[in-house]
Amino acid sequence: MASDNQRLQCCFQEWMTTQEQELSELLQALNLKENDVNSSENTYAKLAEKSINSFQEYIDKRNQLSRRDVSGLFAPSWNTALENSLLWIAGCRPSMYIRLTYALCGSQVELHLPEILQGLVRGDLGQISATQLGKINDLHMKTMKEEERLSNNLASLQENIADQPIAVIAKRLCRVGESSGDVDLALDEHKSSMASMLQEADKLRLSTLKELLGILTPVQGVDFLAASKKLHLCMHEWGKTRDHRHGRN
Amino acid sequence: MASDNQRLQCCFQEWMTTQEQELSELLQALNLKENDVNSSENTYAKLAEKSINSFQEYIDKRNQLSRRDVSGLFAPSWNTALENSLLWIAGCRPSMYIRLTYALCGSQVELHLPEILQGLVRGDLGQISATQLGKINDLHMKTMKEEERLSNNLASLQENIADQPIAVIAKRLCRVGESSGDVDLALDEHKSSMASMLQEADKLRLSTLKELLGILTPVQGVDFLAASKKLHLCMHEWGKTRDHRHGRN
Repeated sequence: MASDNQRLQCCFQEWMTTQEQELSELLQALNLKENDVNSSENTYAKLAEKSINSFQEYIDKRNQLSRRDVSGLFAPSWNTALENSLLWIAGCRPSMYIRLTYALCGSQVELHLPEILQGLVRGDLGQISATQLGKINDLHMKTMKEEERLSNNLASLQENIADQPIAVIAKRLCRVGESSGDVDLALDEHKSSMASMLQEADKLRLSTLKELLGILTPVQGVDFLAASKKLHLCMHEWGKTRDHRHGRN
Repeated sequence: MASDNQRLQCCFQEWMTTQEQELSELLQALNLKENDVNSSENTYAKLAEKSINSFQEYIDKRNQLSRRDVSGLFAPSWNTALENSLLWIAGCRPSMYIRLTYALCGSQVELHLPEILQGLVRGDLGQISATQLGKINDLHMKTMKEEERLSNNLASLQENIADQPIAVIAKRLCRVGESSGDVDLALDEHKSSMASMLQEADKLRLSTLKELLGILTPVQGVDFLAASKKLHLCMHEWGKTRDHRHGRN
């Protein structure tokens, strides 16, 4: 029978395979030059919806698994060290989505400036409107506030370890690391709070992504999703190269 | 020749051995009932100084090693998953020291209440004065403020990955994970900022510990250090049991 750790790893690997497949579909759609604007808008919207649904499925599945073993998700061995150094509550910071959107807008304006001035490029992230930017900024503020709230909750959960009952039981044990039913119970309670924490963080990641895609036009949404998945997959590969360089398997 | 990762692991293992040795010295000193108050105060003060010096040596060494490979310290494979889920910038939160002090004060008052009322127990953390508690509270506020500042810096460093140049280069690559000199350079710069971040966090951990020991009497300091090291070593052992339970080696 598979261990909790193997189930978590399997869930992650399936997710990475999905990411690769979706990236290739997104890029294909962006490269297609459909003449019918309505039909391509429709394709883009469907792809964005598919991405959101598979993200929802992934977090549902790992939240379910995390009820048995949550610690393994805070710095998984299947992530590279580079990726683990970037984690926030077992995933990416939701505000990274917004940071990425801004970066893509800026770089595309820079890249296509002549075409934009001539009105030849339309619809992508270089063409974001002032109204959209205002809404993204509001979303940014809201997301950062929520991140701060969750970070504070995490801090207080982490500090609980140095409080009653765990720290006091540890002090009174005859032997370091001696097993204790009371400690086991307290660590199980701690685990369950950490799992709820993860669920809240995942909920924020998903809601931020949904709201962001709601502000972007369908083609901008697909542009963003493709860049975001590609960045994630690239970081995983670059992390592997660096792990290898420093003697990690 | 040892890899960067092996050097880091070796540095950690030496540190854990030092922790065990120091714990046994601290407990021995606490159990000795010297009649001469001055001589035991002197012994306690020396042990606290020794602990601080070895902590300083450890962080100096790992800061030096982190210049080559810092990612490996943010969720090291030699930590258990439980320990990695409690990390804050590659170590413990400095405010945990204060939380632990409060917990020890409370539990010792509770345990020795009859003796305290009769004036029979003197000197340990159950006997902390109002003036000391006031100073510890000030230190707590100061420490939390610094933690918040560093957490914000870390957040912005982590988010930089989703910005120029890394995210934009990733978007333009033909193949996912393709190596790029520019990305390598940007990741090296990122690494060096993360190493500075670690150094600042370690500095805060050390200064908080020093200030706390400066507020406590020598015997209280030794009492705190013993409990703190024992908790750390216990968490490592309990984490191993839990890793085993969930199928991690």
